Amino acid sequence: MAAIPWSVASRTVSAMMQEDPAIDPGKMDLIYRSKAPRNGEPKLKKLVENWITPTPQFYIRSHGTNPAVVADEFKVSVEGMVENLLVFSIQELIEKFPKSSCTCTVSCAGIRRYEFNKVKEVKGVAWQEGPIGNAKWSGVRLSDVLKAAGIKADAKHVWFEGADEIVDGKATFPFGGSVPLSKLLEEDSSMPGVLLATHMNNEPLLPDHGFPIRTIVPGYIGARSVKWLRKIVVSDKPSPNHFIADVYKMVYSGTPVEIDETAPIYRYPVNAALCSAERQDDKVLLKGYALPTGHKGCSISRVEISMDNGKSWTAATLGNEAGDFCWQLWTATVTIANTETDVCVRATDSFGNSMPETVPWNPKGYLYNAWHRVPVSRFEI
Amino acid sequence: MAAIPWSVASRTVSAMMQEDPAIDPGKMDLIYRSKAPRNGEPKLKKLVENWITPTPQFYIRSHGTNPAVVADEFKVSVEGMVENLLVFSIQELIEKFPKSSCTCTVSCAGIRRYEFNKVKEVKGVAWQEGPIGNAKWSGVRLSDVLKAAGIKADAKHVWFEGADEIVDGKATFPFGGSVPLSKLLEEDSSMPGVLLATHMNNEPLLPDHGFPIRTIVPGYIGARSVKWLRKIVVSDKPSPNHFIADVYKMVYSGTPVEIDETAPIYRYPVNAALCSAERQDDKVLLKGYALPTGHKGCSISRVEISMDNGKSWTAATLGNEAGDFCWQLWTATVTIANTETDVCVRATDSFGNSMPETVPWNPKGYLYNAWHRVPVSRFEI
Repeated sequence: MAAIPWSVASRTVSAMMQEDPAIDPGKMDLIYRSKAPRNGEPKLKKLVENWITPTPQFYIRSHGTNPAVVADEFKVSVEGMVENLLVFSIQELIEKFPKSSCTCTVSCAGIRRYEFNKVKEVKGVAWQEGPIGNAKWSGVRLSDVLKAAGIKADAKHVWFEGADEIVDGKATFPFGGSVPLSKLLEEDSSMPGVLLATHMNNEPLLPDHGFPIRTIVPGYIGARSVKWLRKIVVSDKPSPNHFIADVYKMVYSGTPVEIDETAPIYRYPVNAALCSAERQDDKVLLKGYALPTGHKGCSISRVEISMDNGKSWTAATLGNEAGDFCWQLWTATVTIANTETDVCVRATDSFGNSMPETVPWNPKGYLYNAWHRVPVSRFEI
Repeated sequence: MAAIPWSVASRTVSAMMQEDPAIDPGKMDLIYRSKAPRNGEPKLKKLVENWITPTPQFYIRSHGTNPAVVADEFKVSVEGMVENLLVFSIQELIEKFPKSSCTCTVSCAGIRRYEFNKVKEVKGVAWQEGPIGNAKWSGVRLSDVLKAAGIKADAKHVWFEGADEIVDGKATFPFGGSVPLSKLLEEDSSMPGVLLATHMNNEPLLPDHGFPIRTIVPGYIGARSVKWLRKIVVSDKPSPNHFIADVYKMVYSGTPVEIDETAPIYRYPVNAALCSAERQDDKVLLKGYALPTGHKGCSISRVEISMDNGKSWTAATLGNEAGDFCWQLWTATVTIANTETDVCVRATDSFGNSMPETVPWNPKGYLYNAWHRVPVSRFEI
């Protein structure tokens, strides 16, 4: 595998050049659901060609305009309940702390949101099955940086704040979030609790993915992996940032007290999707992905296909590549007598979590993980 | 209805006299699941005789020994993110603030816990269907007291701390908990968000129920209604007390990070139980209770009975007495051909919540609300 070009100091990214996907430096191969802010997902057939998602097919989810960044001037601070307030340039971070890489899947809490619209319209980006990707991330571990800062007793959470500016009515604020400090207890030699990532798939992060630095939180919804990271705050409570205190929560009525009673969404649930169907002689080859619940040590136990609306199920064949906090690809060869048929897909993970037949509607359209039910007519076979 | 004897100043309760249920001043009519601490639930047949539960049949749930209390020396403080630190005697509280009464149901998070043992043994008091009761509570509203104290901006939660001392290994600490400040937004003229109750069913609280003062939090599990209340703290985060930060949470693996990721249990879920069966000629009269999910405006829509393991259901008759955050009693007249039969009961509330056929096992045995399935042989008919 190619050496990681660790230095990012020479790169400068202006906000301007990121406004138009046509001149996006990543030459993204995405279907854009919105352009300002930029939100795009890959074509599903391409998404399941590779266990490691090539960067051009990796979904983009932003809540505001990308910030202008001059890499060698960009600073990350470590503040709050720490013994030593710290400020690092990206180059200092990379030089001072052990370099660390991991492969894990990032998935948006709004994945498959459009399926809720069948019941009742939901708000938010109309994501289909594509806002999910599995990449190799490299950088330094949050735990090493916090050790250098020294965590005070009674600290319980770590906040992250981006350099972006999100405009919401009259207010302007950065994207942010937090994780419980105990998330760091589940790290081991191959997987950080939280990575401060400067690189994706062996290249410096693209602007749309948070250049020059972002968090990667294995097992958590994508919203907890904050891009353009400029501030780390150790605290005794979760971040009050809008994107963790108010939204990205499973609420149904949306009253203030329901929001305050409800924990932020952290882990993503088991999920799966059928992404391509190709005729092979008299059979059809199905391909898709399956994601175990975002727990350490949790893997996909089985993916099952039904051609009769769930009356009977047959096992799909799982791909060989898997890992903690990673998706797994699958294939199945089936006979399709009737092109009016729906294909149903469900996955079960090693913790016993299974995709349910239906899920309750929620107004923000989060965490849709019912059986993936796709009319065969969606594919040209 | 009798006038409430508001003065409590003359009452003194020693810890000693509360140690033995035989000399319990309330002459409780309970089945004790443990005596130190004291945990008792009523006989089910008596429980459903009255919509307002008489105090002798009201369940007792304590985590430690009752504190010794001299009522006219007892003080409640209001601290934390307030403009004015306040300290009140009980008499001052009653004189200074508008008196307020409400009727609501209090239900333990461990109700029906023993049914989990059919799957796998759970920890905690082996509660059956009895730790639930509906009483008239009187006192003053937390919202009025907090108005007098003045709440600082950024405050989000209100902590409560009892005067009891719970011994857990080498540590000794009071029972405590908190509610989001926004809970107070749902109060109206007939129902407080949180009541600081000095009286239960028109009498001063009995020692086992928190004399001289406790919180009553309509719609929340009993653990949020803190007895022997001596400290109110306004804060920007939930209480760090063991009973809200660590336990009374729906966790499955119990890892530190799972506990930190999970919100405290606040509202109780929809539930129901069959409590008595009496032969009437060739029929059998069933009686029970049903509790809607603890939301304002949520009521019981229907209670259904099945004599064939859920294949067919018939509607029970709901009692006339109901109210926000209150249970409802029900009756059904059925034919029981075979005394080997199981009776199944399920309730549905006006928010669309229904008791499921089964619920996932959790190691603490909280919130069991699957169909209530009772062998007819349990009753002498």
